[in-house]
Amino acid sequence: MSKVGFIGLGIMGAPMAGHLIDGGHELFVVQHRSAPPQDLLDKGAVVCASNREVAERADVIITMVPDTPQVEAVLFGSDGVAEGLSPAKTVVDMSSIAPIETKRIAARINDLRCSYLDAPVSGGEVGAKAASLTIMVGGPEAVFEQVRPLFELMGKNITLVGGNGDGQTCKVANQIIVALTIEAVGEALVFAAKAGADPARVRQALMGGFASSRILEVHGQRMIDRSFDPGFRIALHQKDLNLALQGARSIGVSLPNTATCQELFNACTAHGGDGWDHSAMVRALEVLADHEIGQPPAG
Amino acid sequence: MSKVGFIGLGIMGAPMAGHLIDGGHELFVVQHRSAPPQDLLDKGAVVCASNREVAERADVIITMVPDTPQVEAVLFGSDGVAEGLSPAKTVVDMSSIAPIETKRIAARINDLRCSYLDAPVSGGEVGAKAASLTIMVGGPEAVFEQVRPLFELMGKNITLVGGNGDGQTCKVANQIIVALTIEAVGEALVFAAKAGADPARVRQALMGGFASSRILEVHGQRMIDRSFDPGFRIALHQKDLNLALQGARSIGVSLPNTATCQELFNACTAHGGDGWDHSAMVRALEVLADHEIGQPPAG
Repeated sequence: MSKVGFIGLGIMGAPMAGHLIDGGHELFVVQHRSAPPQDLLDKGAVVCASNREVAERADVIITMVPDTPQVEAVLFGSDGVAEGLSPAKTVVDMSSIAPIETKRIAARINDLRCSYLDAPVSGGEVGAKAASLTIMVGGPEAVFEQVRPLFELMGKNITLVGGNGDGQTCKVANQIIVALTIEAVGEALVFAAKAGADPARVRQALMGGFASSRILEVHGQRMIDRSFDPGFRIALHQKDLNLALQGARSIGVSLPNTATCQELFNACTAHGGDGWDHSAMVRALEVLADHEIGQPPAG
Repeated sequence: MSKVGFIGLGIMGAPMAGHLIDGGHELFVVQHRSAPPQDLLDKGAVVCASNREVAERADVIITMVPDTPQVEAVLFGSDGVAEGLSPAKTVVDMSSIAPIETKRIAARINDLRCSYLDAPVSGGEVGAKAASLTIMVGGPEAVFEQVRPLFELMGKNITLVGGNGDGQTCKVANQIIVALTIEAVGEALVFAAKAGADPARVRQALMGGFASSRILEVHGQRMIDRSFDPGFRIALHQKDLNLALQGARSIGVSLPNTATCQELFNACTAHGGDGWDHSAMVRALEVLADHEIGQPPAG
């Protein structure tokens, strides 16, 4: 049983923290503008007055916040985690943030004689609730092994990818592949539909071969069904592709199709779609082709 | 037992025709500049003097040639299949050619009171030899059912996608997805490698989640192993993306990432890579990033 602090009790963080307290760990949370979720309080979560106090009372402090600036604010802001840390504690950032900034953040935490893991997740709200998240970890192996029992309460595919930053790099790689595969399926189905073929039968025919993927299976079906409630919102994927494109610029990598996918997401938001599921990227391709997949074949 | 003509005994066609004769069918082939493969002759294949004679003697005539002009030449050229057809025979084109031209070709064959199926395949030389091809069929259902026993000798995933042309449309959709997914995996692994992560561990971490695909599994591993012997040659995939881009132009569809992938293939051929496996598209991204996946991490 560990003393675990959890900062960031949003759509993802709240169920993740719930699994930790269900697993028998002592949970420390913080009172922000809004109170912590009632079910966590009912289960005995201890409410602290600040992030600093969470770090003082817990041994492992997990952060799960929207982006790089929020992680920096939580850790290094006034009354922040860094002020409450004492040597041998561990900070685990499960947010999805910039890999390069992560290396700097890890170094600052290490300077306080504490350990740091970056451990972003994929699997979304469904995976957070079902404790089936994929967790991509960067950091020292010994620290990873210490924290692993906590990860196993929240996720299923848990991989130590490498040193600090490599977990975030892996998450960015994941989001590149997911966006570009959605776009690939979109191009293929829009082409097929406007050429007069039934996209549902095309999808079925392709499922057995080298074009098969989780994206063709799940997101391809969403495109055909016109089922664009999230799921994973376009606004969040835009944030992740921004991490990819800014990271690529800073390390000298060219990501031509990632750039195009970001622009297609931008086209979706121009049509009010920042809250659509990311599979709705196909709508931008449909606008370009003046043809919706769901329409009767033109041929 | 059917009388089957097979025109186009290349790397794909020869083993496919072999499966038909092994399955008990009478096989008619044609003597071109080069003799038919000796093992087909040993098994009793009947050699005809022209494509016309093949059509006269067989009931089902299969074509397996490189591209649209070759199909048109074989069918409608001098001493071609059309000259030898009589009503109620069936032409099955298993080449990968233009969907729109296919509809015109089918109409011309139908005008001769014969049936037509387009039935392109994926799975490559390995699939042709192993009789495990994916076969995507366009044409009337009754004709499909008549020919299905022949398809089952050559392939495993056999789908009637729709009417004439829809098989070829499906094949184009397949090649779009395969190329764009290779590119997606390439962008992700080049980004990860130059950011300092181990691409092999990144690939492994991603295999369980939404980024997983046959391409990440097979072609991602090829990129890491630097294993670029074909497989499927870039020159062939360029031909297929040309079908996609020309088809898209003629029906009014925009395929931005297909266009980029074709340009990246062009960059490979500029470096002598038209015979490389298509997973070597990653090399174009590596040139852009001035970093090979196989290099030691920069971080």
